[in-house]
Amino acid sequence: MSTKVFLNEDEIPRQWYNLAADLPTPMQPPLGPDGKPISPDMLAPVFPMNLIEQEVSQQRWIDIPEEILEILYLWRPSPLYRAKNLEKALGTPAKIYYKNEGVSPAGSHKPNTAVPQAWYNKKFGIKKLTTETGAGQWGSALSFACSLIGLKCKVYMVRISFDQKPFRKLMMQVWGGECIASPSTQTKAGRDILAKYPDTPGSLGIAISEAIEEAVSDSTGQTRYSLGSVLNHVMLHQTIIGLEAKKQLAKIGEKKVDVVIGCAGGGSNFAGLAFPFVADKIHGANIDIIPVEPSSCPTLTRGPFTYDHGDVAKMTPLMPMYTLGHEFVSPPIHAGGLRYHGMAPLVSQAAVEGLIRPIAMDQLHCYNSALMWARTEGFIPAPETSHAIAAVIEEAKKAKEEGKEKVILFNWSGHGLMDLKGYESFMEGKLTDYPLPEKDLQASLKSLNGLPKAPAVKTGKW
Amino acid sequence: MSTKVFLNEDEIPRQWYNLAADLPTPMQPPLGPDGKPISPDMLAPVFPMNLIEQEVSQQRWIDIPEEILEILYLWRPSPLYRAKNLEKALGTPAKIYYKNEGVSPAGSHKPNTAVPQAWYNKKFGIKKLTTETGAGQWGSALSFACSLIGLKCKVYMVRISFDQKPFRKLMMQVWGGECIASPSTQTKAGRDILAKYPDTPGSLGIAISEAIEEAVSDSTGQTRYSLGSVLNHVMLHQTIIGLEAKKQLAKIGEKKVDVVIGCAGGGSNFAGLAFPFVADKIHGANIDIIPVEPSSCPTLTRGPFTYDHGDVAKMTPLMPMYTLGHEFVSPPIHAGGLRYHGMAPLVSQAAVEGLIRPIAMDQLHCYNSALMWARTEGFIPAPETSHAIAAVIEEAKKAKEEGKEKVILFNWSGHGLMDLKGYESFMEGKLTDYPLPEKDLQASLKSLNGLPKAPAVKTGKW
Repeated sequence: MSTKVFLNEDEIPRQWYNLAADLPTPMQPPLGPDGKPISPDMLAPVFPMNLIEQEVSQQRWIDIPEEILEILYLWRPSPLYRAKNLEKALGTPAKIYYKNEGVSPAGSHKPNTAVPQAWYNKKFGIKKLTTETGAGQWGSALSFACSLIGLKCKVYMVRISFDQKPFRKLMMQVWGGECIASPSTQTKAGRDILAKYPDTPGSLGIAISEAIEEAVSDSTGQTRYSLGSVLNHVMLHQTIIGLEAKKQLAKIGEKKVDVVIGCAGGGSNFAGLAFPFVADKIHGANIDIIPVEPSSCPTLTRGPFTYDHGDVAKMTPLMPMYTLGHEFVSPPIHAGGLRYHGMAPLVSQAAVEGLIRPIAMDQLHCYNSALMWARTEGFIPAPETSHAIAAVIEEAKKAKEEGKEKVILFNWSGHGLMDLKGYESFMEGKLTDYPLPEKDLQASLKSLNGLPKAPAVKTGKW
Repeated sequence: MSTKVFLNEDEIPRQWYNLAADLPTPMQPPLGPDGKPISPDMLAPVFPMNLIEQEVSQQRWIDIPEEILEILYLWRPSPLYRAKNLEKALGTPAKIYYKNEGVSPAGSHKPNTAVPQAWYNKKFGIKKLTTETGAGQWGSALSFACSLIGLKCKVYMVRISFDQKPFRKLMMQVWGGECIASPSTQTKAGRDILAKYPDTPGSLGIAISEAIEEAVSDSTGQTRYSLGSVLNHVMLHQTIIGLEAKKQLAKIGEKKVDVVIGCAGGGSNFAGLAFPFVADKIHGANIDIIPVEPSSCPTLTRGPFTYDHGDVAKMTPLMPMYTLGHEFVSPPIHAGGLRYHGMAPLVSQAAVEGLIRPIAMDQLHCYNSALMWARTEGFIPAPETSHAIAAVIEEAKKAKEEGKEKVILFNWSGHGLMDLKGYESFMEGKLTDYPLPEKDLQASLKSLNGLPKAPAVKTGKW
């Protein structure tokens, strides 16, 4: 068996898969500030209508335009690897496969949705996209996509990351993107915060507010906002990962997958790999599908399922999801992409149904797993990805104990070459675990008071 | 036509190509301090005998051991890309193909030789490798290789780079390598320099001296030294790049390559792609083969061909090569991998014969080309690689002027994700060109006084 399996470009999936079409219970709608379901029209100042149509679509398969594929070909289909060295080091009978999403120009799975989002906006006549970014993965992915498609890109980057992680900002600039620290003086939202807290380190919530404000206040109507996770159309675009994986496994005669694993922050890389397998599970397959989150930000494992805002400033609609409360402030773990208080509604509903089995991992355990990975499989994983790796190693050990030749598949969501400072702190013994204290969780959940409830509707089949 | 062409693992070349077997005039031997040719035995304290055999081999094809291939499969065969977006942006009739060597775990072509070097040392019973590194590409590649093969690795990193580029050091540490600043107090060579110049920023010459000293002074005989460029066996290992490219071009029916381009510092990435095409040229093919060097370190374009040392401290044998003199200090261009005073003897002899056509490029022109590349083709190139890109763009423009559908092939030797500071300086307008002043060249060439001459022997056929 080879170390990796390629697909040729003419074998790439030509449709995205929409899990909403197969979920056994319908998704509850997003709500406006008045508590009433919002209509597509209400989103029009923020997103172009062609993406809003995808956001609310119930269609199972959605065609990928040829022009989008032409750009995705720069790194897709991504290789499916078998982690033979790790298997050997663990002495496990399990077969460990992974999709290497680190091969994209921005180094993660994020361009899978950045490219279509930029393309649909361009198609709709938009000239400029705004967005926010925390650690910088998403901002760099969108800058890359806008560069190739011919849109302006403006990224509001949380000030503390802007100062601490200059390299992500430089990536955006190399691709012609404009990256400024948030809060900024360029928006009312930013100015208001700066007047009140001149020394604020910023937050994703504030950066979202600024990016949305700039988009909706462009009087020419040629600017829109773009989000890198959580939303239905983002999950949709990422499903190309899992669809490719299925073709690649079929190519090498691997008929049955036992365990599917991905790390989960907002949910997009997990959903991208997992949703096509969730569909199989809905139709009867026996698969253990595991989203892995940090114990310091245990949205799926310890948060309630209810309506909540996507941002601190409550600019977004209310979404039905697992959440730690929109005022949640995550401890400073290095996996910045996993420090989000909520979870994609589609992933949340799959969890409500019992179709997926969320777990949480401590930071030190993840770094230990990342080092073991780098020293056997070579590629240095992002801190987010290390959460998936930690779970893979546990599952492989379990397979060894059980003496079962399980097939484990996971999403290697990105490389860690821009995140080496975290490795340094870990190797110097300076990192600690931050399991979320119950009292902090309860305090954070108070921000849900007064918001409408989303009942956890499930069929009880899984 | 696809954006990229894969080879499956069972299509990988199973032998390396040795240009020494085909050069029309024999290579002149390396000389010892006494001016007499050195024997393989004299190298035995520094390198294991199996690599020394490759170093002096005249055999045309040398088998690649299966265990080495098993590790190379982590990223090889590397994809052959067609730069369709760049072609379109230039409006050129030329077809631009490139080998993407940035897909390796260390991000460049260097692991192609790091893995075999570590493997042969292990096979020979060696437990530890020492080496030097400037900017850190080579040190990280060797740390990666030693990690997977099971050797200790000790890297002497030039102090100024050690302080300025902490991320490369961290990569080495993630792979379990030990990386210390040079000069250090751990060797006599280091202590001597520190006693004389306590504040020295270090140099590659000093770091080489320290690494060799540690290797040869291990009384157990279980430590050897490893070099990432210049030597014959390094060129040999890199030829897998060009051999793969030939198979990939054949796969898509591309019968004739007109131009082959690679950047050249010590010569290894250029040689890796070019040597299989140099062989074709020796046998009658009409190919323009271009090594591209920086105008600030114009070894092939302005240096003489003669005997010189590989390092400042004169610890290495004298090698017949183009050189700027072993005391040459390159201006501070960001392409650290191209700041070497000498050139691989095999590349040098190909230049003497007229089989290759060296050119030199200014730094600003290269960065401009790198930005154009990133904004059309997506991947951010290393500053070294940008020299090849600048030449490719010039050749593509020439093809446009001539109205010729030329086939251009080049080596995209590595990504620039660890080199974003250079991009920052460029985008902020803080960089300048450093063409080497004639008086500085003449001053540097004085270090050749008293060394034996290497006559530029050529057949005059090219």
